[in-house]
Amino acid sequence: MKDWLEKHLKELNVTTSMERPEGFCRLGYSEEEWQAIEVFVSIAEEIGLKVRRDEAGNAIARWETEEKGTEDSPAAAVGSHVDTVKGGGGYDGVAGVLCGLAAIKKLKEEGFVPVSPIEVICFASEESSRFGVSTIGSKAMSGLLNKDDLADVPDEDGITIRQAVEGMRISWDAIDQAERPETALKSFIELHIEQGTRVEDAGAEFGAVTAVACPIRLKIMIKGQMGHTGTTPMGNRKDALVAVSPLITFISETAASLTSSSEVPIVATASTIELKPNVMTVIPGIVELGVDIRSVDDDLKREMERLIRQKCSQLSSEFGVTMEVNTLVDNPSIQLDDGVRKKLQHAGETLGYKAFVLESGAGHDVMNMAAKWPSGLLFIPCKNGLSHHPEEFASLEDLEMGTEIIAHYLKSEASI
Amino acid sequence: MKDWLEKHLKELNVTTSMERPEGFCRLGYSEEEWQAIEVFVSIAEEIGLKVRRDEAGNAIARWETEEKGTEDSPAAAVGSHVDTVKGGGGYDGVAGVLCGLAAIKKLKEEGFVPVSPIEVICFASEESSRFGVSTIGSKAMSGLLNKDDLADVPDEDGITIRQAVEGMRISWDAIDQAERPETALKSFIELHIEQGTRVEDAGAEFGAVTAVACPIRLKIMIKGQMGHTGTTPMGNRKDALVAVSPLITFISETAASLTSSSEVPIVATASTIELKPNVMTVIPGIVELGVDIRSVDDDLKREMERLIRQKCSQLSSEFGVTMEVNTLVDNPSIQLDDGVRKKLQHAGETLGYKAFVLESGAGHDVMNMAAKWPSGLLFIPCKNGLSHHPEEFASLEDLEMGTEIIAHYLKSEASI
Repeated sequence: MKDWLEKHLKELNVTTSMERPEGFCRLGYSEEEWQAIEVFVSIAEEIGLKVRRDEAGNAIARWETEEKGTEDSPAAAVGSHVDTVKGGGGYDGVAGVLCGLAAIKKLKEEGFVPVSPIEVICFASEESSRFGVSTIGSKAMSGLLNKDDLADVPDEDGITIRQAVEGMRISWDAIDQAERPETALKSFIELHIEQGTRVEDAGAEFGAVTAVACPIRLKIMIKGQMGHTGTTPMGNRKDALVAVSPLITFISETAASLTSSSEVPIVATASTIELKPNVMTVIPGIVELGVDIRSVDDDLKREMERLIRQKCSQLSSEFGVTMEVNTLVDNPSIQLDDGVRKKLQHAGETLGYKAFVLESGAGHDVMNMAAKWPSGLLFIPCKNGLSHHPEEFASLEDLEMGTEIIAHYLKSEASI
Repeated sequence: MKDWLEKHLKELNVTTSMERPEGFCRLGYSEEEWQAIEVFVSIAEEIGLKVRRDEAGNAIARWETEEKGTEDSPAAAVGSHVDTVKGGGGYDGVAGVLCGLAAIKKLKEEGFVPVSPIEVICFASEESSRFGVSTIGSKAMSGLLNKDDLADVPDEDGITIRQAVEGMRISWDAIDQAERPETALKSFIELHIEQGTRVEDAGAEFGAVTAVACPIRLKIMIKGQMGHTGTTPMGNRKDALVAVSPLITFISETAASLTSSSEVPIVATASTIELKPNVMTVIPGIVELGVDIRSVDDDLKREMERLIRQKCSQLSSEFGVTMEVNTLVDNPSIQLDDGVRKKLQHAGETLGYKAFVLESGAGHDVMNMAAKWPSGLLFIPCKNGLSHHPEEFASLEDLEMGTEIIAHYLKSEASI
């Protein structure tokens, strides 16, 4: 099993070695992503699955039941993605489709005969790094894609989503036909690396996820006054960077203190900053700060946003600058299916692995699928919690554990 | 006089209107700078000066004395530059060469006959915005140009100083031949917009400058740990931006408090910041902060640097990050000639203008000239102290005042 996982891990990453100092780069709807999806298709066919590409470019590999009359029954599905951020790792996404395929192979070798069909889905364009829009393939499949809003969103080279999609020989106008009826699937699960260390920190071996924390994202524009760094006395400045610094501290400290007084954690990060003019001899006149806030408790996120707005108003008067807070994104968090979560947890525990029940701080394809089908998410550990990074790593042991848990879960899910 | 100033102000800015929302862009050793220097040459020739371009591209316009035998006497010189930063204003530099030329015109019209020659010098490449190196032309003239260190310094397009200079049909290898002997000049003065509001704030009309505060510049590299903003608990982070924020506040507050307890002011600015990866979903792993420190009191600058280093070491332990402080520049401040300062002050006061004696927080060509010749610097006010900005503005009244002060000063300086 480990040999198979290792070999196909490299194949799905279109590489001969997982040691890649520069990481991987398979952006959504790029030739590089398409190449990896083609590898997925070959492996799926190799283990005897029938594969089709849908109208959004998702690849759906299906194990048809041998019992006549149940071909059209709702399928038990598992899936993830193979695209990456720039300089990303080889496990985020890939681990999910790899373990899904490996689980099928294992079930076939064991002579398992499914009653319901089983599917492994490789979604297109999960990462938001190219267009600032995530999970395009799974949005299309679950009917959540807002085609008109997205068509003209450009990447950093000015290529729009529509152009990128059509570059992959997919019709943008027909992309929403990828939507599947509720009756197509009976459930959906995704396996993903945790991208954190809470499972390990809890002394557990895998995570059974209850909910996906979707973000509130703020863009805060601070306008002060540019001036010469040498000729503007300290008492006569409206330095936008000096004005915003206490806010960065405040965001970090407030998230920590809200976490310690709440039932579920909240994280908040000032993650991007742009200075104008960002020149050694000029006092920063304008700062744009990007803030990412996540918790599965939507009220807690809104409380955090309220406290940030309050602090901005206090800092504006204190430093004589203006601070304008724009809410870019305010997505309610997604509850996953409790039944599916318990089945996944049970499957793992039956196999002797210790479970930790937690929420996901990151978004995944499963959050779209959960809008239409009972859905679950399984975490396997990754080294130091590192992801979106060339040193992202999950052990073959943990990939094998993930495969076993999926196989065990599917065995019961596809038996009725 | 005002009409002449207004007309030639526009000509030197190669524009038909000073209202330019996008500002001016005449980078050092660019075609745009060269075009403005050519305008300087024509105006100088129009008013009867003999102009030569030296080996560094500086233009030297000379009013030869009519008394035989004094042609080679040391000249009384005045000058500044015509290059700008990107999106700069039309007065920084231009005001100095314009008022210099206007003063000569005035003296000629009054029938003044100089005993010593008079020169108006238009220096090449004063701004540091293209190569990060300032005052290249005046460095060359005063023998301070370190040719070997500079040759390969690139601009943001990768063009080196050597390439840019040679693109202007100047031999890089011969550029140091622009150096002039001490006997070439008897003194040098520069008129410049203040780029601050201390003259106005003091209720005065012009500034007589005692010294030029040269900067200490630091580049501080903070290394924390990247991580997913959604999956890394608050207590488990090494956020480089959170770690550096208290430093930004500290720099601003410490400069203010050192100023209030010292005889001369100090200014310190965290003016540039670069985040890696600067992506909404990733905790900032690396921050690079640029700090500019200026005072005419070099000990005070060094004390500020010491306090910053001390604070960095405290913050490193507190936030579990590394902070590496590199001193990019540590230039001792330049004392200007007290005699020349008094003559300028006297000239202005004789004409009925109120003087304010101050130091310059910004560097100017005069700081290089002061290394070799008795030198002085005259400030005229500029609106709201704004410079390096499209809205930079000095009134025609103040340009006329500057012209009169230079003319009055030159009349006595060139009479012996």
